[in-house]
This record gives sequence, structure tokens and C-alpha cells, in this order.
Amino acid sequence: MPVAKAGLRSSSRYAIGGRLGMNADNSPVASLDYFYLREGLLAGNFSPRQVAEEVLKRIETRSSSAEWTWCVPSKDLLDQATAIEAKDRRLPFYGIPFSVKDNIHVEGLPITGGCPAYRSISTQTSPVVQQLLDMGALLVGKNTMDQFATGVVGVRSDPHPVNPFNDQYIPGGSSSGSGVVVAKGCVSFSLGSDTGGSGRVPAALCNIVGFKPTPHVLSNEGMLYANRSIDCIPIFARTAREADAVFRQLIPEQGDTLRPAADAVPELSRLRIAVPDAKGLKFFDDHLAEESYRKALAVLRRLGASIETVDIGAFTEAGAMLFEGAFIGERFDSVGDFIKRNRDSVNHVVAQSVLAGESVTPHRIWQDLARLNSLKGQAHRLLSQYDCLLTPTAGTVYRCDEVKADPLNLNRNMAYYTNFGNLLDLAVVSVPGYFRADGLPFGLSFIGPGYSDLKMLNIAAQWESLSAVAPDVPAGPG
Amino acid sequence: MPVAKAGLRSSSRYAIGGRLGMNADNSPVASLDYFYLREGLLAGNFSPRQVAEEVLKRIETRSSSAEWTWCVPSKDLLDQATAIEAKDRRLPFYGIPFSVKDNIHVEGLPITGGCPAYRSISTQTSPVVQQLLDMGALLVGKNTMDQFATGVVGVRSDPHPVNPFNDQYIPGGSSSGSGVVVAKGCVSFSLGSDTGGSGRVPAALCNIVGFKPTPHVLSNEGMLYANRSIDCIPIFARTAREADAVFRQLIPEQGDTLRPAADAVPELSRLRIAVPDAKGLKFFDDHLAEESYRKALAVLRRLGASIETVDIGAFTEAGAMLFEGAFIGERFDSVGDFIKRNRDSVNHVVAQSVLAGESVTPHRIWQDLARLNSLKGQAHRLLSQYDCLLTPTAGTVYRCDEVKADPLNLNRNMAYYTNFGNLLDLAVVSVPGYFRADGLPFGLSFIGPGYSDLKMLNIAAQWESLSAVAPDVPAGPG
Repeated sequence: MPVAKAGLRSSSRYAIGGRLGMNADNSPVASLDYFYLREGLLAGNFSPRQVAEEVLKRIETRSSSAEWTWCVPSKDLLDQATAIEAKDRRLPFYGIPFSVKDNIHVEGLPITGGCPAYRSISTQTSPVVQQLLDMGALLVGKNTMDQFATGVVGVRSDPHPVNPFNDQYIPGGSSSGSGVVVAKGCVSFSLGSDTGGSGRVPAALCNIVGFKPTPHVLSNEGMLYANRSIDCIPIFARTAREADAVFRQLIPEQGDTLRPAADAVPELSRLRIAVPDAKGLKFFDDHLAEESYRKALAVLRRLGASIETVDIGAFTEAGAMLFEGAFIGERFDSVGDFIKRNRDSVNHVVAQSVLAGESVTPHRIWQDLARLNSLKGQAHRLLSQYDCLLTPTAGTVYRCDEVKADPLNLNRNMAYYTNFGNLLDLAVVSVPGYFRADGLPFGLSFIGPGYSDLKMLNIAAQWESLSAVAPDVPAGPG
Repeated sequence: MPVAKAGLRSSSRYAIGGRLGMNADNSPVASLDYFYLREGLLAGNFSPRQVAEEVLKRIETRSSSAEWTWCVPSKDLLDQATAIEAKDRRLPFYGIPFSVKDNIHVEGLPITGGCPAYRSISTQTSPVVQQLLDMGALLVGKNTMDQFATGVVGVRSDPHPVNPFNDQYIPGGSSSGSGVVVAKGCVSFSLGSDTGGSGRVPAALCNIVGFKPTPHVLSNEGMLYANRSIDCIPIFARTAREADAVFRQLIPEQGDTLRPAADAVPELSRLRIAVPDAKGLKFFDDHLAEESYRKALAVLRRLGASIETVDIGAFTEAGAMLFEGAFIGERFDSVGDFIKRNRDSVNHVVAQSVLAGESVTPHRIWQDLARLNSLKGQAHRLLSQYDCLLTPTAGTVYRCDEVKADPLNLNRNMAYYTNFGNLLDLAVVSVPGYFRADGLPFGLSFIGPGYSDLKMLNIAAQWESLSAVAPDVPAGPG
């Protein structure tokens, strides 16, 4: 693929929001919903090329250049769609548009990891991306991210995307662009990366679904790593049903091994849900976030679900190891040398965070690894007694300027419920909860033990049916 | 407890073997089988003190001092038994005799880790030992082990136990004494440690059961560690039913969380068993071992079990990380400083193995940890498609002099099927298979994914009913 940046509006506001399905110009492609596209493409109601045309229009009108590090040029995207038309339309991703975070390799495309100075042309393709391409998917471009996937705020790049619901607020990160472009309906789904919440926090703040599989269920080969031992590729989609559909196609031979089978998942009304006790529950003085969370619990309780408070100390202790324990050493091992050599080209907060990893000794690593494995056992025991743990995805949300003024502390707050997810080998789906009183979204995380992926997706899909929170962003100034 | 060594025969041969249940002297305690003792103690057919008397007699007549680093003095053991008699006899271990490997702390008792120069008096008690004592168990003593639990051969201590079936052969290690004293019927069960096979190889070579739980299901606090991140406490018993009974008492609150529930385990005739393919199966030119293994498979196949060969490359690659990869660094972190300062007091093979860990860098650790986590995913996928993986516990057995002549290579061969067990977070039961044509025992390992502990124990118990291999050692020269 040629390397060039498609023309994008430089404004950080998208032009038209509009509810998915409303097209002012009578395009035959009324939505980029995965199931809608599958049906329409299979029935021949429209072609991959028409989907590509709709995608280009949406990127042009809704998206901002701050969300993309690179877009496939229009002509190339249309050529790619035409090439797909020669394939079997029963391929599960035939003509389905997607984008990937800019720390995932696609051969021949540029990769920056969110840091222009790091830019190179990839010589390999991530196996997950290759699977999607082989199954007919249409790759649209690469999305902006917090540099080196370090941070969950989404403002650690220049430029950075903003929250689609209020441009004063952060979009969440590190997969900032991947979350925003799905929220804006520019692609059917996107791939991010998730080490400590990067695949969940942007979903929560953009009012979409972020599904973070159990680490190593999807291959993490072909990425620029933060913590290779636990990095995983999350799926952003507007609904849990879509994330589930994408995930299942990527794990054809694994479905039966992900326990328990999704059809064994109880209905919400019979669910045994663990929630953090008073000590573990944190909203950082954000009463609107707390109100939204409590409303969700009340709805579930009224429905009949059993909700029990539990001590999440094992989870939060593990989470602290990611940046305040040995695991920052792994991040240093990934990109520390580059940062040391290019200090001036790297976001200073990212540099400060990562370089702290240089002093991590083998003794510290073994000490933390032993403790972590013990905590994994505790977390597994706790989770096995419930259908899931339910927490806020993020206990609050901040304005961009607030985060820039106090970058480390506020980032830590934002990652409080997510940092432990991969360290403890968990499966997590972040799904829209009820909007806050100030009109910002609020995300809920359904958390299960390793390999409970399909069960968590099923629970999340049930929740979204119940809550009826639509994944649409408000109309912009137009 | 006072610290002293009970009088023991110095010969490495035990005096009387005899089938369990045959007592020449009409002791009321005919066996140390857990269920037999429970029934008899509950019914009042005999008392804890009478059990203790029987234990003392058995240690005196069957055991060798090479199997113990410390025994509770006779009078103290009888006093301990008398104290237990004041307790509620419904306590699950009321009057049940057990011993522990000498790298497990028991407050007030000496601990050496198999190295006399390391000797100190413990100031803490392992929580698992404490649970047993609280439930009425009778602690008999501490067992010999390969120094610092480094090795699976059982000859890396001075003196070292020998194989109860042929004193020219190794007993297996590193929990050498713990395996031998159970085989000889001196205790009902024993606790060992298992990092890379130390709780399974001695069981295989002594014709008993060695159950290695998923790491961190039982606490590994209060031990002298090899690799604290994965070290676990295995249970040695003469039968899988007894190991299961002991284990269940130690995890009262965890039973429901260990999947799948044991009652959901299919009968052997309906089991889907994975076995190593030709590339993965290794007997190191030991045709008698191969013959025994193939006989077991033939019996299972005839019964109706489905047996499929699989590539165990992910398992063996992980296994190699324990001594030839980063994880030797964790062992160095545990005992390296002591070994460096006391080089002359440490077995030179152990010293050589452990000190190699000093050069392990953080980079190497992160590299191996990432690869290991990826292999864990592969292993989980493979195991989830079957009820279990079945392998030899050890692909061969060696004479003591052979191992002493080529200690590293032969130790590596002995650990080929076990080194990966904890690194990959698996549950494994080693259970007696059919005797080899030379009269030596042969062990089979039933291997399942993390938290399949109760299922593996159930399968092992079914196997022992089917095979009817009795856990009895042959009568000695008397």
C-alpha cells in the first residue's frame, strides 16, 4: 500500500454526527453496523466499493485528522474494495471496514507507536490483521494513540483526539483514535492494544464497547510492545454483539475451549455479580460517575441479579505493579533505549514513566512475579464464585487541561479499575452504562477469569439490551 | 518441639516391607491408609497414641535415616498424639501421621533445605502445615531432599535415600525422602515441594501418587523457595483417593471453584486423552519404560478411551526455561547468595546449576516471560480440547552411579515431562502405571489446565482402580 495521508479536516470537531442509519444523501449503505453490512453485502444490496465510498464520506465529514496517523488514500481504498469484490462474499469480513491502532504492524504501512520520530515502514503484518484481511476485511487506516501505549488518557500524542461528547474532555487512551473513530461510525470496528486499560478506557469515554480478551487468546505477534508478556489486542465496536461476532471469527478453533460455553451463561436476572466493597470503590470525588454506577447496580438488582460486595484488594495490588512495580521494567525493555536516545522527541510524561523502568532489578522482578502469581490465584478464587466482577471502567473522567496539568496522578486514577486486567490474566468487556448527568458517557466493566471471554461478551450483550444505551455520539455543530 | 533426631537404622534398606495391613505383632493399627485410620479413629478402634506407636515401629523397622533430616523424638511424638486425643475426633486429620519435606517451615523445628550448612530453626509455620496441625494431624518429621530442591534425581544430598524397589536406583527427587517414606508406609501422606517435577518424579519411582496442584491453589508461604513464583506444595500418598481426600480438606472454600466439578468427569471409557506424538515422546532408549507406557495406553484404548497424539512442543519449550532459560535466575535470587558464600558446603552440581542464574538479565527475563505466557495460551488451548494430557512422569530411570557420573544430562532427561508443569500453571497427578519388566515402577502423569485439580485426581483414581497396581514396596531382606 502506498504511504500517504488522506485529506482530513483539521478541525477536532466532526461535521455531522447523526444517528447511525441516517444518511442525508441516500447512500445505499445506511450503517456500518457489522450485521447490517453482512446482510446487505451477502444479499447484494450494496457492494464493498459502496461501503468504501461511505467510509470515505464518513471519515471526511465526521472524523478529525487527530484520530488518524495514516489513512489509506481514497483511490487505494476503493481499489482495495474492488479487489475484495473478486472474493467469495461469504467470507466473514467481506467488505467490512476496520482500522488499527498505530502500534500494530501491517506490512508496507508506516508505524509510529504514536511517536513520529519512531516512524518506520512495517515489514510484517500482525497475524490478527492478516486473518481479517484474509477474511475479506477492508483496512481503512491507522489510529492515533498515546505514545508507546503509555497512558490511558488519550492526550499523550500531538495532536491528540478529543472526547466525541465534549471536546474539552479526554477521549481515553492509549487507543484514543481507535475508540473515537468507532464512536463516530467511521469503521465497523477497530483493533487497539491493551496492557493496562488502553482497550477499555477509550471505549468507556466514547460510549462504545471495548473487549479485552484474555491475554494470548488472540496472538500479540506483530506489535510494537508495551509489556509483551501481557499485551493483547482488544476489539472496539459499537455493541457487544458486534465485538463478539468479530472475536468469534478470529478464534474459529478456540470457541469450544473458552469456558463456559456462552450458551451456559445465565440471564441477567439470575446473575451472581461481585462488586467492589466500600474500600475498593473509588470515584475520586466524581459524584456524577458514582450516580451513573449506582443506577446500573440498582437496575440489575431490581431485575433480580444477586449483587455482593467483595474485597478487590488482590486486583488493585496487582494493578499497581504495572507502573509502580517491576513491570515498568518490561516497558523500558521494549522502548527504553529509543526513548533514551530520542528524549526530545518523546512526550515528557511518557519518557518519565518508561525510564523509571531502567532501575528495575532481577530481584525486584522475581519478587513481584511471585506476588503476582499468588494474587492471580486469589483473583481466580474470588471470580470463580461469581458470574462476573462488575466495576466502573474508569471511576471518573477529566478535562484535557486537567490531565495535562497533573498527568501522572490523574492517569493513575483513570486506570484504577483496568491496570490489573492483563496482569491477572482476565477477560474484560467495557460496555456503555448510563450517561452521566453532564452528558458524558460512563463505562461498566464486566470482568471474568481467564478464558471466560465468551461469557463476558454474552453478559455485556445482555446488559446493552437491558440498558438500551445507544452508542451514538451527539450531532456536532455540522 | 525439641530438636533431635530419633533413632533410626543407618542401613539404607528397610527391614520389613510386607503388604500394608499385615502386622506381625497384632498391632491394632493395621494400616496407615487415610480412610482406614479415619474410620478406626472415629470408631474408637484405636487411638492417636496407638497410631503414633505404629508409626514409630514402622520408622524403626522400615525406614532409613537417609530419608529423614529430622524426626520427632519418640516420646515427643507420643506426647503429641496424647495431646491430639483431647481434640474433637471428627477433625479431618485427627491422629493422621504425616511428614514434610525439609524446605517447609515448621516453627521451632530445624530446616536445612537439604544442606546441613544452611540449617536454622524455623520461626514460622507454613500455612498448609498449620492447617493440617489445626485439623489434628500428627507431624512425624522432616524428609531428606535434593539440596535446595534443585534436581529431580534424589541423590543430591548426603546421605541420600535410595529407590525402595532396587537400592541401586535413584528414588527420584527433589522430594526424595517424602516419596520414599510414603512408599514404605511410615506415614499416611507427606508434603513435598514441586517446581519442575519434585512432587511427581519421586512418586513415579516409588510407585505412589504425587499430586501437584495448580500453583497458588495451596499457599506456598512459609517455604525455602526454589522459584517462589511457581513453587507449590504437592501431596504424596499411596493412592489418588487419599491424595484427593487430603487436598479437599485443605481447600474447603475452593472446591466449587476448581473446574469442572469432579462429578462431571467422564468415565475412563469415555475419556478424550491427548498423548505426545512421536516427536514429543521420549524414553531415552529405555525400552522397558516404553513398554510400560504403551501397555497403559493399550489398556485405556481397549476400554474405549479416545487417544489422540498431539504436538507437545509448547510444553517442552516452556520446560526448558526452568534451568536453561530465565527462570534459573529466580532460583539464584532465592539461594544464590548463600551458595556463593558457602560453595564448599553445597553439592557441586546444585551450585553449578543455581549459580548459572546470576547472569540472567532483566531483558532475558522479560523475553522469556512473554514467550512463556504465549506458550501458556497454546497449552491451554490444547488441553481444553481433551480431558487430559497423559505422559510418562519420567521417560526412564537411572542407577545412582549413572546419575552421579553424568548429573546434569540425566537429571534433564528425568525432568523432561515435568519441568513445564508449574511454569504453564497446570494441575498434574502422577500415579503408578504398570511395573517395568525389571521390577521397577513406572509413573503416568495425568495433566490438566490450571484449576482442573479435582478432575485430574478423579481421573487418576479411576486409573488406579482399573490398573490395580498396588502401591506396595517389595519385602526387604528383613
